[in-house]
Amino acid sequence: MTRTPIPRFDDNYTEEAAKARRDFLVQQTGTSLDHTSNYSLPPESLKSNTENFIGVVQMPVGVAGPVLINGEHAQGWFYVPMATTEGTLVASYSRGMRMVSESGGVKVTVAEEFMQRAPLFEFDDARAAKRFLQWLDANLNTVKTEAEKTTGFGKLEHIQTWQVARMVYTRFNYTTGDAAGQNMCGKATHAACQWILKNSPEAISYFALSGAIETDKKHSHMNLLHSRGKRVIAEATIQREVLQRLARTTPETIFKQRQRSAIGAQLAGSAYSGPHSANGIAALFIATGQDEANVVESHTGMVFMDITKEGDLYFSVTLPSVICATKGGGTGLATQAECLKMLGCDGTGKARKLAEIVGATVLAGDLSLLSAILADEWVSSHDAYGRNR
Amino acid sequence: MTRTPIPRFDDNYTEEAAKARRDFLVQQTGTSLDHTSNYSLPPESLKSNTENFIGVVQMPVGVAGPVLINGEHAQGWFYVPMATTEGTLVASYSRGMRMVSESGGVKVTVAEEFMQRAPLFEFDDARAAKRFLQWLDANLNTVKTEAEKTTGFGKLEHIQTWQVARMVYTRFNYTTGDAAGQNMCGKATHAACQWILKNSPEAISYFALSGAIETDKKHSHMNLLHSRGKRVIAEATIQREVLQRLARTTPETIFKQRQRSAIGAQLAGSAYSGPHSANGIAALFIATGQDEANVVESHTGMVFMDITKEGDLYFSVTLPSVICATKGGGTGLATQAECLKMLGCDGTGKARKLAEIVGATVLAGDLSLLSAILADEWVSSHDAYGRNR
Amino acid sequence: MTRTPIPRFDDNYTEEAAKARRDFLVQQTGTSLDHTSNYSLPPESLKSNTENFIGVVQMPVGVAGPVLINGEHAQGWFYVPMATTEGTLVASYSRGMRMVSESGGVKVTVAEEFMQRAPLFEFDDARAAKRFLQWLDANLNTVKTEAEKTTGFGKLEHIQTWQVARMVYTRFNYTTGDAAGQNMCGKATHAACQWILKNSPEAISYFALSGAIETDKKHSHMNLLHSRGKRVIAEATIQREVLQRLARTTPETIFKQRQRSAIGAQLAGSAYSGPHSANGIAALFIATGQDEANVVESHTGMVFMDITKEGDLYFSVTLPSVICATKGGGTGLATQAECLKMLGCDGTGKARKLAEIVGATVLAGDLSLLSAILADEWVSSHDAYGRNR
Amino acid sequence: MTRTPIPRFDDNYTEEAAKARRDFLVQQTGTSLDHTSNYSLPPESLKSNTENFIGVVQMPVGVAGPVLINGEHAQGWFYVPMATTEGTLVASYSRGMRMVSESGGVKVTVAEEFMQRAPLFEFDDARAAKRFLQWLDANLNTVKTEAEKTTGFGKLEHIQTWQVARMVYTRFNYTTGDAAGQNMCGKATHAACQWILKNSPEAISYFALSGAIETDKKHSHMNLLHSRGKRVIAEATIQREVLQRLARTTPETIFKQRQRSAIGAQLAGSAYSGPHSANGIAALFIATGQDEANVVESHTGMVFMDITKEGDLYFSVTLPSVICATKGGGTGLATQAECLKMLGCDGTGKARKLAEIVGATVLAGDLSLLSAILADEWVSSHDAYGRNR
Repeated sequence: MTRTPIPRFDDNYTEEAAKARRDFLVQQTGTSLDHTSNYSLPPESLKSNTENFIGVVQMPVGVAGPVLINGEHAQGWFYVPMATTEGTLVASYSRGMRMVSESGGVKVTVAEEFMQRAPLFEFDDARAAKRFLQWLDANLNTVKTEAEKTTGFGKLEHIQTWQVARMVYTRFNYTTGDAAGQNMCGKATHAACQWILKNSPEAISYFALSGAIETDKKHSHMNLLHSRGKRVIAEATIQREVLQRLARTTPETIFKQRQRSAIGAQLAGSAYSGPHSANGIAALFIATGQDEANVVESHTGMVFMDITKEGDLYFSVTLPSVICATKGGGTGLATQAECLKMLGCDGTGKARKLAEIVGATVLAGDLSLLSAILADEWVSSHDAYGRNR
Repeated sequence: MTRTPIPRFDDNYTEEAAKARRDFLVQQTGTSLDHTSNYSLPPESLKSNTENFIGVVQMPVGVAGPVLINGEHAQGWFYVPMATTEGTLVASYSRGMRMVSESGGVKVTVAEEFMQRAPLFEFDDARAAKRFLQWLDANLNTVKTEAEKTTGFGKLEHIQTWQVARMVYTRFNYTTGDAAGQNMCGKATHAACQWILKNSPEAISYFALSGAIETDKKHSHMNLLHSRGKRVIAEATIQREVLQRLARTTPETIFKQRQRSAIGAQLAGSAYSGPHSANGIAALFIATGQDEANVVESHTGMVFMDITKEGDLYFSVTLPSVICATKGGGTGLATQAECLKMLGCDGTGKARKLAEIVGATVLAGDLSLLSAILADEWVSSHDAYGRNR
Repeated sequence: MTRTPIPRFDDNYTEEAAKARRDFLVQQTGTSLDHTSNYSLPPESLKSNTENFIGVVQMPVGVAGPVLINGEHAQGWFYVPMATTEGTLVASYSRGMRMVSESGGVKVTVAEEFMQRAPLFEFDDARAAKRFLQWLDANLNTVKTEAEKTTGFGKLEHIQTWQVARMVYTRFNYTTGDAAGQNMCGKATHAACQWILKNSPEAISYFALSGAIETDKKHSHMNLLHSRGKRVIAEATIQREVLQRLARTTPETIFKQRQRSAIGAQLAGSAYSGPHSANGIAALFIATGQDEANVVESHTGMVFMDITKEGDLYFSVTLPSVICATKGGGTGLATQAECLKMLGCDGTGKARKLAEIVGATVLAGDLSLLSAILADEWVSSHDAYGRNR
Repeated sequence: MTRTPIPRFDDNYTEEAAKARRDFLVQQTGTSLDHTSNYSLPPESLKSNTENFIGVVQMPVGVAGPVLINGEHAQGWFYVPMATTEGTLVASYSRGMRMVSESGGVKVTVAEEFMQRAPLFEFDDARAAKRFLQWLDANLNTVKTEAEKTTGFGKLEHIQTWQVARMVYTRFNYTTGDAAGQNMCGKATHAACQWILKNSPEAISYFALSGAIETDKKHSHMNLLHSRGKRVIAEATIQREVLQRLARTTPETIFKQRQRSAIGAQLAGSAYSGPHSANGIAALFIATGQDEANVVESHTGMVFMDITKEGDLYFSVTLPSVICATKGGGTGLATQAECLKMLGCDGTGKARKLAEIVGATVLAGDLSLLSAILADEWVSSHDAYGRNR
């Protein structure tokens, strides 16, 4: 293979260009692209999504559910499309959904939501940085105005600040409507910072649009604490009878394991203290056109359980950084839009509804996996679904 | 919408079953599934991948590169397929690949590799747990033999143990050939534990196949330290001239920002101290049939830079938990197999090669994004690629 | 030894009671207490400090410095009393103090200060918790008034809240004048919570005065982020000539090591990214009557360095949770009060001044130890000061 | 105050020198040192402990207990000396000791012990680093021999290694007899590294005796995982009747709070998940001549509880990094030696015994404080002991 550049075209988003690139790759690498070239989405629709388009990965979608959700926005029964290549996953989530639904459903609440950009300002010394913080606080309204000039949807809700040495690390927190909003926040913060750089009474010796504490595309304790995306809380009371009938376990058994898993999570320094939030989130994100890399932020969270007076199992999942959208990104692509519609999340004002479905899905999947481990069915069920490798 | 269960069939993995489920969902939810039903992969091929199959998400693939890699396994020029819906991403990774390639390429090394299952044992008191640990150590070879009986590829390399209260948390570390190996490890460890449960001289008062410290599908500090999957180290020396010409920045500028981002990462408690490992990993994982949820483990890592005596930029990325496979999971699916072949990662003995390509890709993407931030081109480039929302 | 209770007296804080307890212990345990009984502080003065008083530990005090400090409160030269049993420590801090002073001194800034109590409220479900938070926000002024009724000095500055499951974790942030203020905050928060418990429109199903997130007597990332006690920033520009003359090293050498230590700190998950803040803090805390257990909160922090245009070393230490007082606790005891006076920290309004001295001391000690490691004098200097064990 | 240096003498460890320094400080700072100069320890005894000695801090000591301990080394009843200036502390620990003793005592186990020095080696690239690791592994015995030449007590047990970029971070793990052993490890590792530097077949481009991952005088997750000092596990089964009678609470109440505090600890990112290990450790460390700064490493740990079948409370504390000694440091000083003797920890082979007493003390104190919070006696008891400030 030689160092031949990928061919470029006047209009890169045409079928002609896609085909030419495929022909080039077939020739250069010896692969076939017969399946990759099988797609129904028009290349022209990808102008905001992919450069150097050559075709599609066919990501299989299974449907889980139905699951009964009692959200502030999602209400009723949902069939949940999950894009995954991991056998057992859809079956297990489906089982969990049955368990929660037969127990009365999952209650889901979005506690708060923010998207961030985190500019960094540096000064001559810590004392100048301290004075800058006072000035910034006094000029918050103007900063807000400058930021919001750039966007129709984004609202700059508040700015958090941390002082380290002579630097000020900030976190500009926005609400962004139905969009995930990373670029919206970037643009708005860029504009606000132009104003700050011009007007700050303290000399700014260094500036960067990111000081890294928005932790975009990264898990962080910061996000666990201060929410990036939506802080989603899913709760269900799983009836003892349902646990026994459908999963051959009991509230006490699950609760006992929880005590020990929590110690394990502390020992390991885990981003998530439950079994496997990332599985459900990744599968739902890919199916619905979310930014697949945001799984890393979204998967963090805390599981909390209790035994009720009636002897049932209160099971909750708190996901502080679910980044999901019903607008922008891949949400408008052909197949992804179909999956969103399957959830009733097409149209305006549906981002919170989608976040609630994510929360319910994670809870159901955690319940099912936990039960499988405790009933000693984990290994055997993977065998049954063909993963005996 | 009513609580109608999803139809079931004697053989769920047929086109007939898939179509029936689609018809059902169209009727129940009002969505169309015209695009989702457009696929060339045979439903029968999904027996190890998806239950309740209804169709595919068409995930657009762009190709980045070529990138020059000097790995122990990946050697030469590579065109990298990236499945993503995030505009700018492929363009940015491509730019980074050009920068590293014109500087002589990326050197990649797989430092170690392990996959884990982490059973938990509990005893009457801490002293019994301590004695159990001595017994386990003395019987390691038998445990190893019992574990390896279940698998043709897996090798139980070593067992790590941690004592908390009267519990022993273990981490069974395996090598798993070309497979990611989570299920292989689960099965082998299950077998080994059956032997332990039968033979332990100390009464085991509680046992679970997972005490949570393998942190499967979760980021953890444990994984950062002790590697889950492959510990991949990518290094490149970026020439000053290349940085200036292609990215309008300098080694000193990038190095200066690094100092400040590192403080930001510490402040935030970030899983990754560089810009955006998750973007490249997610896109490459989806394109090549990896378990998409493993992005959460894989994205953790550390960026380290230095200025060389010649005034160039030494740039390194250490990714301790890259979980990737060239066998099993989604790697055999129609489109995913094509993408693997594009990288020369089809066939036997290619998992490390793929891991090296992941490492090189992450480094290139980090370099490009950092440069864009520093040249104040971050916002404008996203605008140019149509993300002006 | 039998299970004999320690003798009790009508007035436990008398010399007679102290002597009787000593006699009892000598008889019970066979130890002598000849030195422990050598003290000049009157037992009656210990009513707020120690129960079952038997005597004193004679903790040796060495004096380090003088060090030139440019604080907002501490200004000029200071001789710093350090109570320690670790050889080399005073000598090393003294050397560091000389290095910083000959370079122009240490600039210290207290960026912010808060002391906390962190009550926990639980509700029927997450949605009730969310409504409670809105109510709490609307009633902040009343809560503040209730809290402040109990104290002459404490001010309830703001309340931080985090929602997990159906629980609300709060952090009541106070300023507390010259006192460390833990008890003051406990009492004020207790009073405020009585009002909340009585008036909350949402049924509170569980309440605890601490939900653990004030992390009293514990290091936490929370404290690193949100400051417990005083957020102290110490900065110095160490001249190249001074480094070479006094420590046989260079700015570049120290800076190079910093890059690598920072990676080590990330790998280890360290509470402090510099060499040894705890040494100086512990020694100064014991000498000046601080709560010795608060060293654990106070030692956390971040070191940031840079090379100046002139080729000197900018060296900064950010300590976000320095808990120190000039009133209350052990500050009024005989010897401790003398040490405070030595620093000019007796009288009213001196707590910030003391915090600045802590910051300057830590910076000096870090600089000296780093230099010793880099000049390969670490082991030999410990040998010289008699630690050759 | 002018920049007058502290007077120096030919022999700094004499009473004459101490007095001269005091006179100097009295004159320079206006303080009196009448109490500081009251000591019975001979200045000559401080040659390994303090430079620039001026006198002592009189740290009040209260005695708590007796507490019934069932250790591998500490067995029977103990009166525990605690040096503290925090009112209520001794009383509260004493109450806890009564509670555990009336319930049958505290069982304590030292699970493992290591002290570390953590040298860093850097190479041309990651591949050279990888080869070095193989060489190091093959030459472990020689490295061990070189290290142990320098010490009569220290044994190099094993070396842990982590590769990041082209660097190798190591942790040399020693056992150190009755000494804490930091300096012993430093000296032995220095010697071993001299041999490595001379004999490594890979060119070592940078070396430092510390790469920061021993995290000396710092809390770290590394230490929580891999033990620094002694990994001490204390367990007790607190009888329901005792809890009710002595603390007006129940096993269920404490267990319920534990669930919520554990979430709080996770949210906060706490180094210790129980109430206040640092209080007991600091007080006992100062009383017995431990390095007071080691409280920061020692205080980390995990609390685990359960309700027994009989309805009692299993309460355990795991402290993975208790650094304590009965030899070296301040253990030989006059008052400190008396306190050690009070515990029967004088003489040879007593370090583990002391560690067990530390573990029992921490457990007792946590139990008492938890009970006080839950019985709403926390604020009132502090008031009673005179902390009404």
